Amino acid sequence: MTVLDRLSLNQATVKRLGVTEAVDLCVRHDIRAIGLWREPVAETGLAGAAAAVRAAGLHVSSLCRGGFFTHADPEARKAAVEDNKSAIAEAAALGTGTLVLVSGGLVPGCRDIGLARSMIADAIGELVPVAQAHGVRLAIEALHPMFAADRCVITRLGEALDLALQFPADAVGVVVDTYHIWWDASLLPDIARAGERIASYQVCDWILPLPADPLLGRGHVGDGHIDFPPITAAVAAAGYTGPIEVEIFNESVWSAPPDETAKKLRATFPQAF
Amino acid sequence: MTVLDRLSLNQATVKRLGVTEAVDLCVRHDIRAIGLWREPVAETGLAGAAAAVRAAGLHVSSLCRGGFFTHADPEARKAAVEDNKSAIAEAAALGTGTLVLVSGGLVPGCRDIGLARSMIADAIGELVPVAQAHGVRLAIEALHPMFAADRCVITRLGEALDLALQFPADAVGVVVDTYHIWWDASLLPDIARAGERIASYQVCDWILPLPADPLLGRGHVGDGHIDFPPITAAVAAAGYTGPIEVEIFNESVWSAPPDETAKKLRATFPQAF
Repeated sequence: MTVLDRLSLNQATVKRLGVTEAVDLCVRHDIRAIGLWREPVAETGLAGAAAAVRAAGLHVSSLCRGGFFTHADPEARKAAVEDNKSAIAEAAALGTGTLVLVSGGLVPGCRDIGLARSMIADAIGELVPVAQAHGVRLAIEALHPMFAADRCVITRLGEALDLALQFPADAVGVVVDTYHIWWDASLLPDIARAGERIASYQVCDWILPLPADPLLGRGHVGDGHIDFPPITAAVAAAGYTGPIEVEIFNESVWSAPPDETAKKLRATFPQAF
Repeated sequence: MTVLDRLSLNQATVKRLGVTEAVDLCVRHDIRAIGLWREPVAETGLAGAAAAVRAAGLHVSSLCRGGFFTHADPEARKAAVEDNKSAIAEAAALGTGTLVLVSGGLVPGCRDIGLARSMIADAIGELVPVAQAHGVRLAIEALHPMFAADRCVITRLGEALDLALQFPADAVGVVVDTYHIWWDASLLPDIARAGERIASYQVCDWILPLPADPLLGRGHVGDGHIDFPPITAAVAAAGYTGPIEVEIFNESVWSAPPDETAKKLRATFPQAF
C-alpha cells in the first residue's frame, strides 16, 4: 500500500461533475475512494449513485453533509433533525460510515453563541440512536472561525471533540480538516486526544489573498501555508488509518479540466505526508 | 463615573486624522482617552504628539503597535527587536503604559508555525527588561485566525496568555479584542484566567460579508454578530477597570465625517456593557 492508496477525491473538488462523472474520473486516475455530496447524489438518484460507486469498486469515504441545526423557529429545528435523519440513511445506502456535519452558525437574530452551541448538542443527541441504527458515524467538523457567525459556531478541533465526547464513540466523531484548524496552537495535542474519534481527515491548503467569497479560497496541497506532515503524522499517531480526502473549494480549480485536477491531486498528495 | 467615561478612541477608527485632529475630536465629544498609532505619531513628531494629548488632558490608553518579530534573516529579527525598543520608548514618552504587539505571521518561506511562535517568545524575552525600565507593558494581541499566515500566528486569547505568563506580569500582558476572539468557546474562561494580565480591552463588531480586504471588515459596536455584554462582564470580573478602546478598520467608517463617527461611538458604546 502506497500513500496514494489513501487518496480520496471529495466531490466538491470537481464541483461541475455529477456523481457518475466523478466516479469515472476516480477510476481513470486510480483514485480508490470518493467523498460524496448530498446534492449531486440527489440529482443522480440515491440508488443510481450507490450503484455507480459500487460498480466502480470505489470506497465512499464520507457523505457531505448534515448539520445546520441552529434555527430560531422550533419547527425549523425539527425539520433540520429530520433532514439529518435522511442524510444518515443516505450515507448508509451509499455504503459510507461517515456523515460530515457542518453544525450551523449563530441562531438568526440572536447573538448568543452558547444558545447555538446547545442547539447543536441537542440535535446531535437526537440523531445518535438513528446513526447507531444505520451504522453511520456523525463527524463533527470544526470550521474556520471566519465562518462562525454564518456557518458553524464549532471553531476548533478541541471544541468539536469535547462535543463528540458527550456521545458514544460509535455514533459521533470529528473531522480533522487542515484548512479550518491549521492555525490552532492546540491542534497537535487535540488530534492526539481525539484518537479513535477521528472519523475523517480532509486536506487542502490555506492560500492568500482570501478571495471575495471566503468560502472559495482553498488551494491544492503544497500551494499555500499549511505544514501538512506534522498534522498527518499526528493523525496517524492517533490511530487513524483511513482515506484522506482532498476537498478544495476554489473557482479556478472548478474551472480546470477535471482530469488535470485529478492528476494534480495525485502529484501533490504525497506532500501531505 | 458613567460607562462613557471608559470610552477610548483608537486612532485607527479615524484613520484620516492626524494626532492633533484626533485629539481635538476627542475633546469636542468628551472622549477621555485615545489609543495612538506610531505612524501618525511620527508624522506629528513624538514630542508634539505627547504635548497635544497632555494639553488636552487625554489619557493615552495604548500605543499601537509593536511586534512583527518573525523574519528568516537574523538581521531582520534584530532590527525588529530594536524597532520595538523604540516603540517602548515612544509609549513611555506619550504617557501610556501599554504597547500593543501584533506578533507576526509565518516566517517567510517557512511553514513551521512553531518556529514563528518561538521567534516571538524570544523577541518578547529580549524586550522585557526594556519594557520594565520604561514602565511600559507589552500587550500581546491574539489576531483572528484568518490572519495567522501573514500577520499573527498568535490566534487565541489563551495562547497569548500562555505566552505572557512566561514573563513577569508588570512587563507582559494581553489584549482582549472582541473582533479577533469572539468565536472562541474558551473565551470566557480564558478571560477569567487572564486576570491582571489584561492590559487592554478593544471592541468592534464582526460584520458580514467579509470585504475584499479582510483587514477592513470591522463594524461599529451593535452592527454585527458579537455578544458584547458577557465579554465585557468577564473582563470586568477579571479585574480590568481601564479604558475600552473602539478600534474599527473599515473604509466606510474612514470615509464618514469624523464628528459623525465620534457621535456614533458615544451612541453605540453603552451596548458593549
